Amino acid sequence: MSEFIHGGDIYSLQEEVLDFSANINPFGLPKKAKEALEKSMDTWCAYPDPFCRRLTQKLSEKIGVQQERILFSNGAADILYRLVYALKPKNALLLAPAFGEYELALKTVGCNISYHAVYEKDLFVLKEDILKKITPNLDILFLCNPNNPTGQPIQKQLMERIIKRCAEKQVLLAVDECFVDFLENPQEYSVLSQIEKHPNLVILNAFTKLYGLAGLRLGYGIFGDTELLKKTAACAQPWGVSAPAQAAGLAALEDQEYLQKTKKWLPDQREYLASSLRRLGFTIYGSQANYIFFKANNYRELKEKLLEKRILIRACENFRGLDNRFYRAAVRLPAENKKLIEAISEILKD
Amino acid sequence: MSEFIHGGDIYSLQEEVLDFSANINPFGLPKKAKEALEKSMDTWCAYPDPFCRRLTQKLSEKIGVQQERILFSNGAADILYRLVYALKPKNALLLAPAFGEYELALKTVGCNISYHAVYEKDLFVLKEDILKKITPNLDILFLCNPNNPTGQPIQKQLMERIIKRCAEKQVLLAVDECFVDFLENPQEYSVLSQIEKHPNLVILNAFTKLYGLAGLRLGYGIFGDTELLKKTAACAQPWGVSAPAQAAGLAALEDQEYLQKTKKWLPDQREYLASSLRRLGFTIYGSQANYIFFKANNYRELKEKLLEKRILIRACENFRGLDNRFYRAAVRLPAENKKLIEAISEILKD
Repeated sequence: MSEFIHGGDIYSLQEEVLDFSANINPFGLPKKAKEALEKSMDTWCAYPDPFCRRLTQKLSEKIGVQQERILFSNGAADILYRLVYALKPKNALLLAPAFGEYELALKTVGCNISYHAVYEKDLFVLKEDILKKITPNLDILFLCNPNNPTGQPIQKQLMERIIKRCAEKQVLLAVDECFVDFLENPQEYSVLSQIEKHPNLVILNAFTKLYGLAGLRLGYGIFGDTELLKKTAACAQPWGVSAPAQAAGLAALEDQEYLQKTKKWLPDQREYLASSLRRLGFTIYGSQANYIFFKANNYRELKEKLLEKRILIRACENFRGLDNRFYRAAVRLPAENKKLIEAISEILKD
Repeated sequence: MSEFIHGGDIYSLQEEVLDFSANINPFGLPKKAKEALEKSMDTWCAYPDPFCRRLTQKLSEKIGVQQERILFSNGAADILYRLVYALKPKNALLLAPAFGEYELALKTVGCNISYHAVYEKDLFVLKEDILKKITPNLDILFLCNPNNPTGQPIQKQLMERIIKRCAEKQVLLAVDECFVDFLENPQEYSVLSQIEKHPNLVILNAFTKLYGLAGLRLGYGIFGDTELLKKTAACAQPWGVSAPAQAAGLAALEDQEYLQKTKKWLPDQREYLASSLRRLGFTIYGSQANYIFFKANNYRELKEKLLEKRILIRACENFRGLDNRFYRAAVRLPAENKKLIEAISEILKD
C-alpha cells in the first residue's frame, strides 16, 4: 500500500473518531443535495453527462463566468493532475508549506520544483520577495489562497502583482481557491474577477469542503485560456464526474439555506477554537478559513494523545518547512469543538 | 465544448430516448447496491477511503487475486489514462476497430501509435498475424477482450501466444476485460489466471457494465507487476474512487441474485436480437457479449431514423476501419429489444 500524506484517513483507524483532520463543512450534505441524490439514484446506472452541462450552466450563472471557462472534475485534486498532464511543466514554483498534491502531481511528469518558503517569523504570510522568483524559465506557480495548512490568505495587492508578473514572464498561475469561501470576505481575496483578462490564470475550486461533498468528489477549474481548458479536458476520460456528484452539486448550488447556516456558524466557532487554544498556551497563525493552524510549542505528541481519546487532528510534520510542533484542526460544530478543547485541556493537565 | 466520440450521451438529446448505444446491464443498479447507497449516504460528506480497503479485500476474495495486485479507479477509463501516464509509452499497438479511449489516452503523452486491423472478411476475428507486430520497440499493446464494438473474443490459444510474445519482447500487454463476464464462458477467455506469472500483464475491468454502475464510476486494474501498480496509483489523486462508488461496488459483489438474473437473461435476448436483425437482412459479426455488432448493408441512416422514434443506437463510423454501414446495439430487456426490432422493421418498410 502506498503512503498517504493527508488528513481524513479515518478508514485506517480501528475505532470511530471525531475527525478534525479534514477541513470539511461539518453540516454534512446539504439538504437539497441529499434530496437530489435520493431522487436521481435510479438513473445512476447510465453514464454521466460527459460535459456536466446542467452543472456548468448553473455555476456559470452563479459566479458570473462564461461556461466555456469552466471544467468540472472528480474533485479539485483531479483537475490539478490533469492540468499538470496538459502542461507538462519543466519548472514549477511552490510555497512551503503547501498542500502536498501539487508536488506529487508535478513529480509524475518529472518536473523540477523550487520552493518559496513562508516563515513563522512572518506569521506564514506570503511576502513580496516571491515576485523575484517568478522568472521566465518557470512554467507554473501554484498558490493556495488561503494557504493550506496555515489558513493565511494572500494580500490582494500582492496577488495582483503576482498575476501581473506571471503574465509578463509567461508563467501559468494556478490559484487553488478551495477554501476561499470560508474567509470573512472572499471577494477581497478571490481572483475570479481577473480570469477573463488573464489567459495565464487558472483557478481550482471544489464543492468538497464548502458543500460537504468530499466523498462525492466534485471540483472544477476556471480557465483564463479556453484552449488550455480543452487540453486539460483531453488529459482524462470523458466520464470523470459521476452522476451522483453532478446531481448533488447542482442541488447544492441551489441550497441558499446551507450557505447561510455555514456563514453564520463559522466566525464564532473559529474564534472559539482559536482563543481557547491560545488560552491553553498554543500559538495560532493565519487560521482565517475553516481550520485552525497552531503550534503546540514543545508539545509534540498532541495527535497521539488525542487519538487515545478518539479525536483526530492533522499533525503537520510532513508539510515542507513544518515540524511536529505544528497542527491543523478543522472548525466543527460547537459541541464538537468544545470536546476538542476539553480533551486538549485534560492532556495538558496530565 | 470538446468532441465526444462514444455512445450513451443521452444528455445531448432534447427528448428521453431508449438507449441502446451504451452497453450497460439493463437491470439497473443491483438491489443490494441501492440499499447500500441509501444506507451510506450520510457518510458521503467525508473523504472516501483512498485505498478502497474493503472493496479491494472483497474483490480479492471473489476473484482469487492478491490484494496488492488490485488498484481501484474512477471507472476503467480512469485506470487506462493513469497507466499511460505511469508508463509514458513511446510506441503502442492498437487494434482497429477498438474502443476509442486507448488512442486518446496515448496521444496525451505524444505516443506513436500503430494499428493492427481486424477485417470484415475474417468476421473481425483477431488472427495470429498480430504476433509479428509485437516487436521490441513496442512499449504497450492494448487488447479488448471481447473487442468493442465487435463483441468478438480473442481465441484462448492465440491470447496465450500473445502473452508469451509480449513477455519475450518486453511489451506491456493491457487486456481490457470490461465485457468478458458477458461471454458464455468467461473463464475460457479471461487472462486472470495468468496474472501472477506475467509481470508484463495488466487487466482492466469495470463494475460499470456488469453491475449497471456506469453513472457511479467504478473500475479497477489487476497488475502482474506490483511496482507498476504503485506507479500507476501515483499518477492521480488519492481520492479518485468516490464514497458512493465504493459502497455500491462492495454491495454489488454480494448480490448473487443480480448476476444470476443477468446470466439468465442475456443468452436468449442476445439470440433474439441477432436472429431478428439477420432476418431483416443485416449481417451480424461477433456479438458474443452484451451488444450486437451488425452491418446494415447499404442502409446508412439507421441511427437517424431510429432517433426519430426516440431510440438511440451506436453508429460505428468513427471507429477506425469501420464506416456508416456498421452499428452497435446493446442487448436490453425483452420488451425493449422487441421495440427496437419493430422500429427497424418499420423503417425498412418505408
